[in-house]
Amino acid sequence: MQKLFYPERIAVIGVSERRTNAGKHIMENIVRFGFAGDVFPVGPKSGTVCEREILTSVDQLPAGIDEAIIITPAALIPDIVDQCGRKEIPWVIIETGGFGELSEVGRKLEEELLRRARAWGIRVVGPNGLGIINMHASLVTPFAFFRKEFLQPGPVSVLAQSGGVMYNLVNQLSSSNIGVSKAVSVGNKLDLDEIDYLAYLMDDDETQIIVLYLESITRGRQLMELAAKSTKPIVVQKVNRYPATSQIALFHTQALATDDRVVDAAFREAGIVRAHTIRDVINWVKILSLPPMRGDNLVIISRSGGVAISAADFATEHGFTLHPLSETFLDTVQEKSGPKVIKRTNPLDLGDIFNFDFFAEVAEGVLKEGADGIFFQHGAAAEGDIERTIPLGEAFQRLCREYQKPISLCFMYNERDAVRIKQSITFPMFADPLDAIRALAVSRDHYQRGRERAEEGTPPSLPFDSDTIGVTLDRARVEKRPLLLSEALQIIEAAGMPCARSAVCRDVDEALAHADEIGYPVGLKINVPSVLHKIERGIMVQAIQDHHGLKEAFATLTKQAQAEGFADGILIQGWVSHGMEMILGGTVDESFGPVGMLGFGGTYAEIFRDTVLRILPLTEKKATTMVSDLRGYPLLTGVRGLDPFDCAQLKEALQRLSQLMISFEEIKGIDVNPLFVLPQGEGVVAVDARIVTET
Amino acid sequence: MQKLFYPERIAVIGVSERRTNAGKHIMENIVRFGFAGDVFPVGPKSGTVCEREILTSVDQLPAGIDEAIIITPAALIPDIVDQCGRKEIPWVIIETGGFGELSEVGRKLEEELLRRARAWGIRVVGPNGLGIINMHASLVTPFAFFRKEFLQPGPVSVLAQSGGVMYNLVNQLSSSNIGVSKAVSVGNKLDLDEIDYLAYLMDDDETQIIVLYLESITRGRQLMELAAKSTKPIVVQKVNRYPATSQIALFHTQALATDDRVVDAAFREAGIVRAHTIRDVINWVKILSLPPMRGDNLVIISRSGGVAISAADFATEHGFTLHPLSETFLDTVQEKSGPKVIKRTNPLDLGDIFNFDFFAEVAEGVLKEGADGIFFQHGAAAEGDIERTIPLGEAFQRLCREYQKPISLCFMYNERDAVRIKQSITFPMFADPLDAIRALAVSRDHYQRGRERAEEGTPPSLPFDSDTIGVTLDRARVEKRPLLLSEALQIIEAAGMPCARSAVCRDVDEALAHADEIGYPVGLKINVPSVLHKIERGIMVQAIQDHHGLKEAFATLTKQAQAEGFADGILIQGWVSHGMEMILGGTVDESFGPVGMLGFGGTYAEIFRDTVLRILPLTEKKATTMVSDLRGYPLLTGVRGLDPFDCAQLKEALQRLSQLMISFEEIKGIDVNPLFVLPQGEGVVAVDARIVTET
Repeated sequence: MQKLFYPERIAVIGVSERRTNAGKHIMENIVRFGFAGDVFPVGPKSGTVCEREILTSVDQLPAGIDEAIIITPAALIPDIVDQCGRKEIPWVIIETGGFGELSEVGRKLEEELLRRARAWGIRVVGPNGLGIINMHASLVTPFAFFRKEFLQPGPVSVLAQSGGVMYNLVNQLSSSNIGVSKAVSVGNKLDLDEIDYLAYLMDDDETQIIVLYLESITRGRQLMELAAKSTKPIVVQKVNRYPATSQIALFHTQALATDDRVVDAAFREAGIVRAHTIRDVINWVKILSLPPMRGDNLVIISRSGGVAISAADFATEHGFTLHPLSETFLDTVQEKSGPKVIKRTNPLDLGDIFNFDFFAEVAEGVLKEGADGIFFQHGAAAEGDIERTIPLGEAFQRLCREYQKPISLCFMYNERDAVRIKQSITFPMFADPLDAIRALAVSRDHYQRGRERAEEGTPPSLPFDSDTIGVTLDRARVEKRPLLLSEALQIIEAAGMPCARSAVCRDVDEALAHADEIGYPVGLKINVPSVLHKIERGIMVQAIQDHHGLKEAFATLTKQAQAEGFADGILIQGWVSHGMEMILGGTVDESFGPVGMLGFGGTYAEIFRDTVLRILPLTEKKATTMVSDLRGYPLLTGVRGLDPFDCAQLKEALQRLSQLMISFEEIKGIDVNPLFVLPQGEGVVAVDARIVTET
Repeated sequence: MQKLFYPERIAVIGVSERRTNAGKHIMENIVRFGFAGDVFPVGPKSGTVCEREILTSVDQLPAGIDEAIIITPAALIPDIVDQCGRKEIPWVIIETGGFGELSEVGRKLEEELLRRARAWGIRVVGPNGLGIINMHASLVTPFAFFRKEFLQPGPVSVLAQSGGVMYNLVNQLSSSNIGVSKAVSVGNKLDLDEIDYLAYLMDDDETQIIVLYLESITRGRQLMELAAKSTKPIVVQKVNRYPATSQIALFHTQALATDDRVVDAAFREAGIVRAHTIRDVINWVKILSLPPMRGDNLVIISRSGGVAISAADFATEHGFTLHPLSETFLDTVQEKSGPKVIKRTNPLDLGDIFNFDFFAEVAEGVLKEGADGIFFQHGAAAEGDIERTIPLGEAFQRLCREYQKPISLCFMYNERDAVRIKQSITFPMFADPLDAIRALAVSRDHYQRGRERAEEGTPPSLPFDSDTIGVTLDRARVEKRPLLLSEALQIIEAAGMPCARSAVCRDVDEALAHADEIGYPVGLKINVPSVLHKIERGIMVQAIQDHHGLKEAFATLTKQAQAEGFADGILIQGWVSHGMEMILGGTVDESFGPVGMLGFGGTYAEIFRDTVLRILPLTEKKATTMVSDLRGYPLLTGVRGLDPFDCAQLKEALQRLSQLMISFEEIKGIDVNPLFVLPQGEGVVAVDARIVTET
């Protein structure tokens, strides 16, 4: 991919002299930014563009073209690809739209051009994108107008599944005094997708932080695995989070909606920092360009007492501790500033001090005091403050490097001044106290998760009765039918999750005999096929107390089963009525693969949607946090004098579910509902289960 | 207060020629901004400041001074106030700090100066503030440096309990092309507080929107009542939301922390728009300067498909509906733009169209289509787009006025361009899609609440057994003791809330007789004094089934009562075990007065903190939303086939609690916990109650 970003000879195909010609705009960007290599325009008519003669066919191009940028009408492109093939051009960047994102005809055209590209060994960027940018090679290939004075080279590379967003990100990163290394508008991802580019950028020496804007993720599991290996921070804005919006996304770049909570879980596990809006992308990049916040100890320094208070509010909300400052340190500060000016607190209000060197001194003192990071609010309030802010930014830059701690600088005053200052310093500035505090929290959490990942360990291999599971699955597969309730319970049990004692009965006498063995109370359920949605009524009778009740219930359910066409008997089951009712689930996401779910059961929990997702498999640690991340976790550990439940066995049940999903790929969904978690030391009992397999 | 903002003659007291003299800075601001009246500097030494001779005593001032701005050392100020009194100066603005916000000595000094001011009939702004600004009188009195080219006159007035925040707000409102009418740095609120200034600004013709920044609210109830009458939008940033931050707030401007959820409830009821950070203040002001969003129907128009998708995500999250566009309208758009460019959806992606007049046409068409508002994302992408954006802003301004609907314009590209455009148009621009969508939601909710308030009605007068309540309260007051559990239940019942049948027993025989009357099962409780925190163990025995159990329990509790020193008997009570367990509460907030609380009972609910607060008294409507705003509301209305509970009686119980708090001012706290809400038609039953009175 090196040649794509560092070409020596480029062809732009689809160029004319017309003012509105997009190919001409590409030529202009390339020339304006001072690309050092050769550029050859190709178009249907001869003429001159950017002082270069337009060649009227691809054949006229010299040999050794590294990449061709194509912006002709879509229908012509398959043939142009062949022409490029004949000229041995290894890369084509297709900026034209009107392919799969627009229509079925476009989709076929797309397939055709990919087929031809593959035949020639050509790699394709796009189609339907803005091409690429490499600020370190002065290479700007989009047809959209970029102003030279606005783009700054810098450490951030961008991959965007939207030309408009790539355009915005590149411009905003530049105007936020950060700067851009490389950018790719991935378009329809026909050949190369985010994984391919990401792999390149992770190895690229000029890239320190990577930003992705995605509307769909087709290879989620690979994205996770790749990102998890990255030593560079990766910030992803994944949009298209709700089904309502998927229509436009489909039109836009063929994106498919996936469950957004799966994306959250996957990013968390892969150490990807997620942003939901472009401002947050920029903010997270700012903070991740500084050393990490290694703990919760924060010192707030502000030139406005009011801003200090709201920053302290936000700090509290984001789990920071206002780090106490030592008497010695406060004495020094007070001595240098006059006793009536400084209050001896954190937040430190420096509002009445106008000595900018002193600000840097105080910040350094605070870092020495053991703070993990600093929020510093600054605003120009006197004539010349703008100019004096520039060395302050430089001093902060030095302090961050020296102490390996972040200073989150919030500059508030006037946008015009902020713009002026940003042109003179590279130290990142936040525009609002909430942004600055949230950014520190992002840094802390990112660092914290990285540390956790390093200690993650591997998923255990638990003893399974794999034979039983395999035989049961095989039988259903051979008979081309879904698993029965009884089989699902059998599999669950074989995977090592204790189930309530049960048996399938063909007649009432069998049931009576089993009841004696199991002991009353018992429950009866029609042995229905596993379906994902619970059949609400009429398939079960609970808490049957005696023979009489059992006979009655058996008759009712038999009748019901006949009416509904269920012919696989009636399940009798020991009755469990104590313990905490939980739900365990597993599913296979198209993009991210096996996913596990844990939640509280019962109506109240359903209303509050207290569930936690994790990408499978589960390590010991992931299973542990899966339980402890539930908002209702205190209910399991024992609150208000109640006894604690068996969290250890709940975790093991989660790991067993995980191993079951991972080991048997034909299992596409598991729903253990309810699973009763008994008091500590007594284990867990599954009472109902559904398992959906490939059909 | 007119003379304060429109003075003809001003004195600045505390001026010297020294470069760093704050009085001199005040003079410079006043003169630089071109104040048309007379300004007289007063200071200890003669000299010249801003071409005006420094008078060496207040006595030398001419007659007819409208206001004196004081910035001398704090200790001198009481005497200066006397001098001002002798010169019949009606207003003093004290910018000096070092009063009650700093120390006890300062607090006494403050009281002394207030005493003297009152004696002369002088009204005081501050102390410890930045004074006032009136852009319509070119009056800028702070000692902090303001640049003339940065401040813009406009429709927004600001009251800020922090000089630094006032400074920021005034500058940011100006640079966000909105502009400032009047601003007051209220300082320590020694004499005048936010209520006084707010009342003036609500009547001020030059003020259209009012912004308050507050660290404490001393007269919350009055603030609510005043704000509720305002025809102008009021945006309040109330900080100091957590106890952890109150220390700096206390130092800063003597602010005391109150329960932040009470503030939320009060603002909601008064139609105050709350903002948590300065950016949101500015954003809410922007949207409130446009006509209101009258419904949920939103159309998203974007020049980037990617931004359109993320805007649609945010729209979904904020409860908007993507308004369907008619075929006729889409035909027109498509006809004018070319069939391959526009997709027939809302969001409308205009990314490939560069005709700015057409953007305004599409926006107008969408408004005609019945949208309640528009999100329009724009970014300059070609040379000259900046210039073409200016008439677009003007067109949007006209459309908003004509159709009385808001267009939320999100301009994304580059801060430098945004700054340039803002200098040329007054139409508000948002920097980020999330801001723009949140702003529309704020507008919609503000309008919606205004409509609800108009239909609010008055609290009903419910029949009470006031005699019983009065006698019970009197007896405890005379005996200087807290109410007993039995008395609390008596009062609750007299207020019309059904209680479980109960009686106080002195001995076991009485208990046995009552049990026969009430019927088993019964509960026993020691008749403890009302305390706010529940005594967890040892004071009650529940679900007693028979005489034998009763005797045993009575003996246990009698022993326990003796050990703890409770000598008011044992309460026997009918046992309630069905229905939904709820908690009703009432308290008196120091600032906002009586407040009511409703929440679910039980451990699970406690973990999820599902409670709703309202300022009392409750109208029918407020009681209704109090119940329906509970996240767990579906549990009361019947979910998954469960039967619904008696919400009508729950609402009435809330109104009775409200009337009890309002009618009997000595009641400072009520806690009905649990109140069982029975199935629909069966009412409610209170089982336990505490009432705290003034002691």
